Amino acid sequence: MNYVPPLADNRYILLDVLDAPAQLRPALGAEAADPELMDPVLEEAARFVGGVVAPLRAVGDQPGCRYEDGRVTTPPGFRQAYQAFREAGWPALACAPEDGGQGLPWVLEGVLFEWLNAANHGWTMAPALLHGAYECLRHHGSPELKAAYLPQLASGEWLATMALTEPHAGSDLGLARTRAVPQADGSFRVSGTKIFISGGEHDLTDNIVHLVLGRLPDAPSGPKGLSLFLVPKLLPDGRRNGAHCDRIEEKMGLHGSPTCVMRFDEALGWIVGGPGRGLAAMFVMMNSARLHVALQGVGLLDAALQLARGYAAERRQMRVPGPRDGSQPADFIEGHPAIRRILDTQQAWVDAGRVLAYQTGIELDLARSHPDAARREAAQHWCSLLTPVLKAAWTDQGFHGASDCLQVFGGHGYVREWGIEQIVRDSRIAMIYEGTNEIQAIDLLLRKVLPDGGAALGAVLLRLARDLEGDSHAPLLTAIDRLQAATGRLAQAAAAAPQVPYWIAGDYLRATALVLMGWAWSRLASQPAAGDERWRRPAEAFRRWIRPELDMRLGMLETAS
Amino acid sequence: MNYVPPLADNRYILLDVLDAPAQLRPALGAEAADPELMDPVLEEAARFVGGVVAPLRAVGDQPGCRYEDGRVTTPPGFRQAYQAFREAGWPALACAPEDGGQGLPWVLEGVLFEWLNAANHGWTMAPALLHGAYECLRHHGSPELKAAYLPQLASGEWLATMALTEPHAGSDLGLARTRAVPQADGSFRVSGTKIFISGGEHDLTDNIVHLVLGRLPDAPSGPKGLSLFLVPKLLPDGRRNGAHCDRIEEKMGLHGSPTCVMRFDEALGWIVGGPGRGLAAMFVMMNSARLHVALQGVGLLDAALQLARGYAAERRQMRVPGPRDGSQPADFIEGHPAIRRILDTQQAWVDAGRVLAYQTGIELDLARSHPDAARREAAQHWCSLLTPVLKAAWTDQGFHGASDCLQVFGGHGYVREWGIEQIVRDSRIAMIYEGTNEIQAIDLLLRKVLPDGGAALGAVLLRLARDLEGDSHAPLLTAIDRLQAATGRLAQAAAAAPQVPYWIAGDYLRATALVLMGWAWSRLASQPAAGDERWRRPAEAFRRWIRPELDMRLGMLETAS
Repeated sequence: MNYVPPLADNRYILLDVLDAPAQLRPALGAEAADPELMDPVLEEAARFVGGVVAPLRAVGDQPGCRYEDGRVTTPPGFRQAYQAFREAGWPALACAPEDGGQGLPWVLEGVLFEWLNAANHGWTMAPALLHGAYECLRHHGSPELKAAYLPQLASGEWLATMALTEPHAGSDLGLARTRAVPQADGSFRVSGTKIFISGGEHDLTDNIVHLVLGRLPDAPSGPKGLSLFLVPKLLPDGRRNGAHCDRIEEKMGLHGSPTCVMRFDEALGWIVGGPGRGLAAMFVMMNSARLHVALQGVGLLDAALQLARGYAAERRQMRVPGPRDGSQPADFIEGHPAIRRILDTQQAWVDAGRVLAYQTGIELDLARSHPDAARREAAQHWCSLLTPVLKAAWTDQGFHGASDCLQVFGGHGYVREWGIEQIVRDSRIAMIYEGTNEIQAIDLLLRKVLPDGGAALGAVLLRLARDLEGDSHAPLLTAIDRLQAATGRLAQAAAAAPQVPYWIAGDYLRATALVLMGWAWSRLASQPAAGDERWRRPAEAFRRWIRPELDMRLGMLETAS
Repeated sequence: MNYVPPLADNRYILLDVLDAPAQLRPALGAEAADPELMDPVLEEAARFVGGVVAPLRAVGDQPGCRYEDGRVTTPPGFRQAYQAFREAGWPALACAPEDGGQGLPWVLEGVLFEWLNAANHGWTMAPALLHGAYECLRHHGSPELKAAYLPQLASGEWLATMALTEPHAGSDLGLARTRAVPQADGSFRVSGTKIFISGGEHDLTDNIVHLVLGRLPDAPSGPKGLSLFLVPKLLPDGRRNGAHCDRIEEKMGLHGSPTCVMRFDEALGWIVGGPGRGLAAMFVMMNSARLHVALQGVGLLDAALQLARGYAAERRQMRVPGPRDGSQPADFIEGHPAIRRILDTQQAWVDAGRVLAYQTGIELDLARSHPDAARREAAQHWCSLLTPVLKAAWTDQGFHGASDCLQVFGGHGYVREWGIEQIVRDSRIAMIYEGTNEIQAIDLLLRKVLPDGGAALGAVLLRLARDLEGDSHAPLLTAIDRLQAATGRLAQAAAAAPQVPYWIAGDYLRATALVLMGWAWSRLASQPAAGDERWRRPAEAFRRWIRPELDMRLGMLETAS
């Protein structure tokens, strides 16, 4: 059973619930934010993902990628699908028109990548890195470097990597040792070993553009000594550069994406951004990249849910309490309360995840292009605060919810042929990469909330609370008050006991996620269609099975502070 | 890094905390319950598991088992390890002396299998089924059948299977269609397809004894029409019987155990128990088998914890809040609060799981052999009520806690060479087999608690409460009261709305598990060693990070009823 993008659901949230065109118009102009333009893009994207990318999910797992003598062969069909993707112009969707892009809103790219990840996580890893590399180069590259590389990245003619991690430097990039020695002509010779490089070597494109974090000979130790270098696989004159793939990892899942050990051996490179500005150059794309990963969580959960729903609608076992199908010896398990609860609960996460991630995608564009400086700043705060929450909470649910969906299959879920266990294995990595979920929690509480005493988060919560009027929202408004009060007390407690916020950062992130989810469901509840079974069931699942955790987390924060 | 049985921990809980010998003496006599006897058995078992079985975990995953032309080849070394296991007499540990067994308490076998599963889940699947088949045959087999098969099962010379599931009959065994036609000599010809048969075919022993659930020609439909048949791979005269392995499943994990599709083609078999008594014959061993699976959860979690602890003690990344190692650029991650929380939380589950599972193992022997009928009945209730709770809650934690341990490794956790992702994949099956965890919850609430209005559970809770005196236990005593009150209200609510208990059976099981865990930690807290860092840290993790869920679940039960 191949994944089918649920176009109507995505469209409903993007256009009806959030009215993305109205929100984006002041920033992007009437043309880029035209619903008459968005609709056909979404329809075409759904067709491409369902028709071309989804059927390759199983071969992505087995045989997966193969390594031999420095070369990586991607699974059968992957290269053709990528060429079709490129020829249809999908990489250029949100790139600037002057670089050959289509200049469409980020959020449309977000929907496209949600679907691509749901359909085929492994395949999608390759193009998913393109946009970040493009943004990084666009903002920090020299004019010569931009002229030589931006158009090929916007068009997807060449793919890109982020070469950051080293064997001893993972969450702590400041420990990286890769060296870059300046040459007389302004270029650099880059040497060092990078691990966990997604798409470090493959056969999808001829050239691969590596963005490599390294250190100049006279650089200080720690993160401030890091610079970023563009190191192409093929040099401008067509020769091979000294960028070698020594191995691909054997992993729990994601076998469709080669995870490479890359050895840079006096490879020729050019600096992106100034010396010591490597992390700053990368952080340009951090929010966008982490939001992509949050949408992987949403997409993979939706894919797991589709499989589980399909199985539950065709498998008969035992009797359902209540009305029975007397003509058969057993009822469909979709009617069993324990199964219903699993399905409705995942739907509640998927729907709220879309509301929050799409709104954040809209804010990404507003932060960049809104004419009002105050609105830009508010959008910037929204993105900065919500991105780690969405990344951690929805990749967590992507894995755990997919495992819950596996449970719907009973023993069949543990067997490969049903496809669900692949999603569980694939989705596990999203809790780790782009900053582990523990790092996201520390980023939220220690770097973004406590330093200003919770002021920026308070402004976001106030914005949420303004949408919540009437008695039915009283519990959520109370929760917002409690979260604010706990934030203040934590800021005080941290002064005396600096370990405290580190201990409970994960609870703080969960509480914030559940407040946001409550807001998302209140937005959904305000729609005319809220009473339909499609929306009523997950709304009830949120209220019954998910929301109780919010009180628990708030209680833990209050006890700790 | 191979698993090392933590002998001192297990011994401490079995002998110091629970004083198993004193509890067992009235039932088994001074000799079988002699601590002087138990200690060397535990020591020898720890040596065997660590030295012989643990080193084969990785080959169990890759290459795993291979299938060709009806034959299954187990991974290199598996057969030799099994022969060593058999020759050392381990299968016979808790079998009756008259069958060639050693007649030791069940709980010793429990500890042995906790270690075996932790060391090598796949390998352990083969001997894990032996004892259940032995008990089933011992209680329900004819004298001739017992004479022909019991000694070989007790000694482990032959291995056994439970052939229950069919493609359309999983959780609902009443749908099984396998047919058994009586022959003139009192034997039967058994025909049908069984799936998910662990160890249905292998090269560990020459003969394999299948216990097959089937239906006589005139049997009624549904579970009451099921009978149990002993069908050997090799007939008494040495010829092959009509029991064929058509395929082994490709699974998410547990590749060291062949999961077979078995085709019985007019296979010769003999009935075990009377016609229509198939499920009754099997249910003899249900508590024991499910308790084994609960101990898989405990063991696999402990194995994951050993790996994560080892990694966290050697990996330096970033600075720990508080004291730092200035001679190095970063501190060991074991000092990071988020990592510490993961490790201590898993330890809290492992320790409490041991207390509860070992006590339940003791009760299994008391239920069978205590001279006092009232004590036997109380033990029977304890086993009946606690077994589904331990099976569901600790296999759930086995998987989710192993995944948390994987998180400690960051990206390295996702890579095969570290071994942690194998434990995550292997452990997932325990949430499904021996009755899915959803079925366990229904078994607890719908079949065991509500029918007597919560009386039997009330007696168990009263027994727990008697151990809890003093102010420090007030929250747990309050929780016990709330659970009792919620039970009464659920019984009433169920009369009007029969779906309600099905919806919240999972919450009910979790609340019960957390009450039991609270009791276990109060037992541990009453020991002289409770203040040592080894026991203080997980105790604190239980109180801070685990216990809050209890209030949440109780609140959900109260809202629902």
